[in-house]
Amino acid sequence: MLRIAVCQLPLSIDSPDANLLLAESAIRKAGGDGAGLVVLPELTNSGYAFRSIVEVEERATTLDGAVINKWAELARELDIVIVGGLAIAEGGNFYNTSVIIDETGLRGWYKKVHFWNDEPDFFTPGSDEPLVIDTKFGRLATMVCYDLEFTEWARLAFLADAAILALPTNWPDGGISTHPTPMEAVRVQAAASQNKMVVAAADRTLDERGIRWSSASIIADFDGVIHAISDRSRLDEMQILIADVEIPTDRKVGPRNDLRADRRPELYGNVLKK
Amino acid sequence: MLRIAVCQLPLSIDSPDANLLLAESAIRKAGGDGAGLVVLPELTNSGYAFRSIVEVEERATTLDGAVINKWAELARELDIVIVGGLAIAEGGNFYNTSVIIDETGLRGWYKKVHFWNDEPDFFTPGSDEPLVIDTKFGRLATMVCYDLEFTEWARLAFLADAAILALPTNWPDGGISTHPTPMEAVRVQAAASQNKMVVAAADRTLDERGIRWSSASIIADFDGVIHAISDRSRLDEMQILIADVEIPTDRKVGPRNDLRADRRPELYGNVLKK
Repeated sequence: MLRIAVCQLPLSIDSPDANLLLAESAIRKAGGDGAGLVVLPELTNSGYAFRSIVEVEERATTLDGAVINKWAELARELDIVIVGGLAIAEGGNFYNTSVIIDETGLRGWYKKVHFWNDEPDFFTPGSDEPLVIDTKFGRLATMVCYDLEFTEWARLAFLADAAILALPTNWPDGGISTHPTPMEAVRVQAAASQNKMVVAAADRTLDERGIRWSSASIIADFDGVIHAISDRSRLDEMQILIADVEIPTDRKVGPRNDLRADRRPELYGNVLKK
Repeated sequence: MLRIAVCQLPLSIDSPDANLLLAESAIRKAGGDGAGLVVLPELTNSGYAFRSIVEVEERATTLDGAVINKWAELARELDIVIVGGLAIAEGGNFYNTSVIIDETGLRGWYKKVHFWNDEPDFFTPGSDEPLVIDTKFGRLATMVCYDLEFTEWARLAFLADAAILALPTNWPDGGISTHPTPMEAVRVQAAASQNKMVVAAADRTLDERGIRWSSASIIADFDGVIHAISDRSRLDEMQILIADVEIPTDRKVGPRNDLRADRRPELYGNVLKK
């Protein structure tokens, strides 16, 4: 059983320092509540709706910068694993990343592959598969936001034996009816259920420069069942979702069925088609 | 706009003749209500929980048999397209199929590829991709039940330019909390939304030889929004879900985003891994 905390934060592109203080307070609260894994939104340090590359440059951090050092210190102090989204400058490029940090420091960083809207104007896309690493509570994968729309992507994490997927997101509200689960959370449930993988998604709340966020944070177990979901009656404040979930140890879904063994990849070749 | 009817039927393995009469009455009702596409459950002619291959043999029909002829007659009379699940005997084998029938007769038949539970004891698996054909209202795909768990499979229909997926199913109730949408329907919503494709799934209701059916029939539009879903307060009767849904003409999901163009298949090679 793993206690997961998902931090749905009201970040602001105009207050990068305040974002980091908010993230720290959320991490401390989650650690104090006994979480082993703490998930933060996409681009926690920077906000999202950039008007220029200069705004990205001003807000991006580095692999050996203050943000990652601070989160590593918190991971040690609180004995937690932190997964969060960061704008990172590296080798002259900017990346929309998700970092995995534990008590030993930065365990890996993932560069978002599938870009939404104006992201190509500000970031260089990644070309590595979802990051999957071993942690003390099981194999942990990460990717970022729109990546999850591409079912192949969660599948690659599944095929790399991930048991948990931590997803930093900034889901813009597309105005699609929620009745009652937001569609972003529905896709998380399906990804969890079809890959027999715990999925924890940390979204933002409030809005930014005309973008309203979906505030669709969710923790789904490996059957897709919702264990915690954003409370839509209080979207104006930070919410920390907490849930205790079982970590899957196999892909069995019935006496004679296994989601991995039942695949027929010899028939899937056309998935590589443009 | 297309009016779709999904027929959730209380079929019985012990009364094959009654199953066909029930299907006919549902098709007539749906046609009378103005549906252009009528979807029926998996194995409508036979029931599901076979005890022996003899039971399959006794119930299976053939490609030129009475059931398909009758449905072709109804398709002509009512000016509809019928998609339904049938146990079919062909070339010495039995197949768990979905057939597409219009006013010209049998347009194609699909053999289920991913098998649940005891199906390998009774049926030969298919090895063709989801069937996708042109109809007067758009490109129509079909597959059967457990096939949808494998995200690659709906993706192949998407890559074959399907705009609508008709899914005959016999979903056994795995006892997973519905809160409030059954997980089977959640997966349909996600498949619709991630592939920008209308999905109409026809499930069974009641139970059979100890298997309780999920009764999770659903019609989801191409955003994944539920337009009709099984009424869980009256699961003891036949339900015909009706919805008018827009047929997608592209894969655009934002001013700069398109679910097909945004894919990065050059990175998906490991999806073919066992």
